[in-house]
Parts: sequence; C-alpha cells; structure tokens
Amino acid sequence: MSATLHRLGGGPAPSLDPMMALVAHDMNLVNAVILDRMKSEIPLIPELAGHLIAGGGKRMRPMLTLASAKLLGYPGTRHHRLAAAVEFIHTATLLHDDVVDGSDLRRGRRTANIIWGNPASVLVGDFLFSKSFELMVESESLKALHILSNASAVIAEGEVNQLTAVRRLDLGEERYLDIIGAKTAALFAAACRIAAVVAERSEAEELALDAYGRNLGIAFQLVDDAIDYVSDAGTMGKDAGDDFREGKMTLPVILAYARGDESARAFWKAAITGHRNSDEDFAEAIRLVQASRSVDDTLARARHYGQRAIDALGGFAAGAAKDAMIEAVEFAVARAY
Amino acid sequence: MSATLHRLGGGPAPSLDPMMALVAHDMNLVNAVILDRMKSEIPLIPELAGHLIAGGGKRMRPMLTLASAKLLGYPGTRHHRLAAAVEFIHTATLLHDDVVDGSDLRRGRRTANIIWGNPASVLVGDFLFSKSFELMVESESLKALHILSNASAVIAEGEVNQLTAVRRLDLGEERYLDIIGAKTAALFAAACRIAAVVAERSEAEELALDAYGRNLGIAFQLVDDAIDYVSDAGTMGKDAGDDFREGKMTLPVILAYARGDESARAFWKAAITGHRNSDEDFAEAIRLVQASRSVDDTLARARHYGQRAIDALGGFAAGAAKDAMIEAVEFAVARAY
Repeated sequence: MSATLHRLGGGPAPSLDPMMALVAHDMNLVNAVILDRMKSEIPLIPELAGHLIAGGGKRMRPMLTLASAKLLGYPGTRHHRLAAAVEFIHTATLLHDDVVDGSDLRRGRRTANIIWGNPASVLVGDFLFSKSFELMVESESLKALHILSNASAVIAEGEVNQLTAVRRLDLGEERYLDIIGAKTAALFAAACRIAAVVAERSEAEELALDAYGRNLGIAFQLVDDAIDYVSDAGTMGKDAGDDFREGKMTLPVILAYARGDESARAFWKAAITGHRNSDEDFAEAIRLVQASRSVDDTLARARHYGQRAIDALGGFAAGAAKDAMIEAVEFAVARAY
Repeated sequence: MSATLHRLGGGPAPSLDPMMALVAHDMNLVNAVILDRMKSEIPLIPELAGHLIAGGGKRMRPMLTLASAKLLGYPGTRHHRLAAAVEFIHTATLLHDDVVDGSDLRRGRRTANIIWGNPASVLVGDFLFSKSFELMVESESLKALHILSNASAVIAEGEVNQLTAVRRLDLGEERYLDIIGAKTAALFAAACRIAAVVAERSEAEELALDAYGRNLGIAFQLVDDAIDYVSDAGTMGKDAGDDFREGKMTLPVILAYARGDESARAFWKAAITGHRNSDEDFAEAIRLVQASRSVDDTLARARHYGQRAIDALGGFAAGAAKDAMIEAVEFAVARAY
C-alpha cells in the first residue's frame, strides 16, 4: 500500500504513452476481439463500424479496463472480452450521438451518418450494442454483466436527459453534472470497476476503481466541453462551435450566462435558442466565455475531479500501472492548454 | 405425449383470445415489470416509451414466453422479467425502425418519431434496449442471456441486411427469407425457447419451442408483408403501401417481378427505384400482385411455415396451452383473409 500524495499538475507535458505502453500487449488481443466481432455477412456492418473503430480513437475506455487490471496485478484474460464490449458500447453511442446531433465531423473525419446515412448509423449502432452484450455474456461474470448493463442504461438515460436540456438556458451546473456523470462518466467508471470484478478483488477496491473512472470521466467531459470554446476543427478533430450551434448547455455557457450582464444574457438567450449562430456570433460567444473566465473555471472544475480521480488510487501499491493511471489524468486535464 | 395431427385451417375464425386468457394472470405481472422499468426521472422516457408500449400492441412476443412456460407446466416466475425484456427489445426495435423508415403511422396512431422527433426515438430506443439487458441480467440465467443477446445481434444484423436490400429488384426469395428470419423470427424463437431454459427442460424441448417460434415468426412476417398489398390504413393500423413507397423488397413484389411480363417488370423497376409511387401507381402494383397471384402465394408460404410451427409442438402434451398455441398460429396466418 502506498499513500504517496500526488498533486495534479506537477510535471511537464503529460502523456498517454505510459498507459498505452503498459497495456500494449493486452490491447492487441482486445483489438483482435473487436475486429473479429465486427465481422458480418452484411458488408455494410464491418465497413461502417470500421470507419469509426479504425478512425483514430484512443480506445481510452478499454485501455482503462486493461490498466486497472494491471494495477491489480490480475494475470488472466477474462477482461479482454469485457474491454471489447466497453469499446462497442462507446462506439454504438458515438454512432447514435452523431445522428442525434446531426454531426458531420468527428476526429477530423466525416461522420458515418454523413457517409452512409442516418438509418445505417442507427442500425449498425444497434448491432454493436447487441454485440457488446454477447461479449459480456461470454465473460460469464454476472456481476460484470450487471455493472455494464446498468452503465448502458445510465448512459442512455443521460443522453435523453441531455436532449431534453438542449436550448434550456435555465440548466444549472448541478443538472449539467448529472448529465455528464451519466452520459460519459458512467462508462469510465464501469470500465475500471469490472477489472476488480474479474480479478475477484474486494468491494473497497472495486469502489476505488469506480471512483477513479467516474472522476476521470467527468474531468474528461469538462475539458471536452471547454475545448469547444477554444479550438478549431483542424486541431481537435471536431468542429469547434458544434456545441454552441446545437444549443447545448455546457458548463462554459452555464457559467458565462450566470456571470453575464444584461447584454451578455440577451446574447446567450438569442444564441442558445438558435437565433444567433453565425461565425461572428461564435466569435462573440468565445469572447464572452473568456471575459467571464468561464473556460478557465470549467478547466479548474476538471482539475478538481482529476485530483479526486488520482486520490481514489491512494490505496493501491505504487508502480508503473499506478503512475500511468495518474499520468492519464494529468493528460486528460492538460489537453486544452 | 400427444401425436395428434393438427391440420392448419381447420376451424372457423381463429382467435388469440385463448392464448390471452391462458396467460392473463402472468401478463399482468409482466406488465407491472414493464411499467416499473420504463420509469425514469427524465419525463420524456416514460412518456415516449409509454406511447408505444401502451399503444395497443398485442404483446405477442412476451405472450409466447408465457404460453410456452404454460405448455411446459412451469410453475415459477423467473420468466416474467425475461418476457418483459423481450417486449423491450421489440419496442426498441420498433422505435428505431420507424426512424429508419421515416414512418408516420403505426397501429393506427402517429409514430413517436413524428411526435417527439428522431433523436428522442433513437435515444429512448437505446434506453429500452439497455433496460432489456438489465432485466435479463437480473434473471441470472446465463443461458437465457446468451439466447436473448444473440437474438438481439441477429435482429440488428437483419435490419441492416434489410436496409441494404431496399430498392434492390434482384433480391431473391432466399435472401428475403434470411432477412425476415433475422429481423422478425429470431425474437419469436428466442421468446419461446427461453421458457424451456428457465423451466430447465431438455435440449429437444428447447429446440422444439425455438422451431415453433421461428416458424410462427416467419409466417407472421409473410402475412404482414402480404397485408401491405391488400389493406388500407383504417383496417390495419399502418399505411397500406408503406413497403411499396419505401421500395422494400417483400415477397409479394419478388414474386410479382419474377412472374411478370416485360411491361410488368418495367413497372416494378420504376416503382422500386422510387420513380412511381403515387396512389395510382400503388393501385397498379396491387393489380399486378393480384394478377400474378403473388399475395395468394405469399399467404400460401405463410401457411407452410404455420404448419411447421404447429408440427413443432407435436411432442408436447395435449391441453389448453397447446390448443392456444396452435390457434395463435391459425390466427396469425388468417389475419389477411
């Protein structure tokens, strides 16, 4: 057991590389499962799924399952199928999200719904979602099944919650946190927790990994939502301003609105209800979130959750796995700088 | 054991009433599970899901699980959650189907995608799908989980297969049967089979119930596809001609095209590729399927599968459950007359 204090923001240029190196061997095996289970006699399925799955994602979520297993010193392979299932759930969600949002760009590439249409994206999403459950069932761990099926339901509920929150200026920070806790952090939490389940470790270790994943997930989404108000499509692989144009109530907007004067509030009202969404309007939105320090404070909130993620690892033994998991948090919260 | 021969089409005016009466008590308990699991703090979820679930469906698939359990004399309640899961899978599929097809009418009512929009229908479908897995996991039968998760993947694959088959005049009867076997019959088969799993009966009984459900499902879909060329919205609760206007290659069209002369084939080419879809064109389509006896023969195919469904029950003891399950087949194939 190690109780070494790690303060977020210590080192220079944090990277995901240590975590990727830590799990490289396992990830090759997980990738083999992913490719095998995308197969179908219907050519559209591997074609469409492959576009997204091969499309430069970091495999963050299955990587967390694998890293958590390393942290626990678990020597087996029962978590490989579960890690693949986690990636399938995530991919299915992305496919449906892009349909729901009408997105045309993800990770710098055209989205599947633009290339193959909404119907194909909906149905291939369903296919991947079903396959994720097949993989889970094959793991033969009812407890892991319970955790992941519950996470899936929570994600879907969070997505609906977010949909009903669109263009609602009265959305507060609390409900925003509920939404990202469900749509993003639930899967991060489950991805980490299931490693403790297959390794048959204590409830306390399960909950510590759950807390690590959940807080990392919240930090991750907060940074993502901040990035929409600082970057452009070229650097981040998604269209900056997408959230703005869709009227999504993310924390930068929630804070900027709460802190704004009358004219700023009038602007946000018009913008979030869809009446001001030109490039000039987006430039004005960026000016307002910067002036109110709303992006800075969104990132400060992200660091808060990042620190909690790191502290959740306090009880685990020091070593390469723990270092990599800490640096992954550093990386997640440093992305916007 | 009873080997009494039952010939399809024997009695007058077959009805689902005996099956509904057989399972009425169990169905009340299943309905309670369904209503309980539709609950959410996000009001849109029960509202949208309830529109479809309360919308006059016959609950055919969970009814088959319950009737199969009765046939086996299973006294327990472990199948109730699984029956609710089956209905959730079906409802999720309907929600996504209506998005994919752009349908505006189902069971005589406006579809959810028309009332609440495509995004809400996609996401609430995902929610119900996730909830179905939660229910399955709670049943704690890995075997039932395996059967139902596999059925889900097969359904999704069948839906994608159907999507890629749209407007493809060269689709033959074999691939059409593949599609309906996957998108419709797989869930009928699984719904029946899981009763034998929870009742811990022999592999032979499992497979017999699977065969009953599968053949009934194929018959059911064949009749549905025939109805699109004989009925109108008022009587059937869906728009007659929907399949025609969407360019769906169903058996009536496949047969009419194969049997048609040059002018008929020219008509189908124009119609299926979307260049002739007026009411007059649909009237012409009906004339051509009637003249080629394509609807009659689609219904004859349905009777063939119906007879196979009935014969699959040959090994089970005579009684009210068996009689009700036989009459359900009679009812399914008699709907179009």
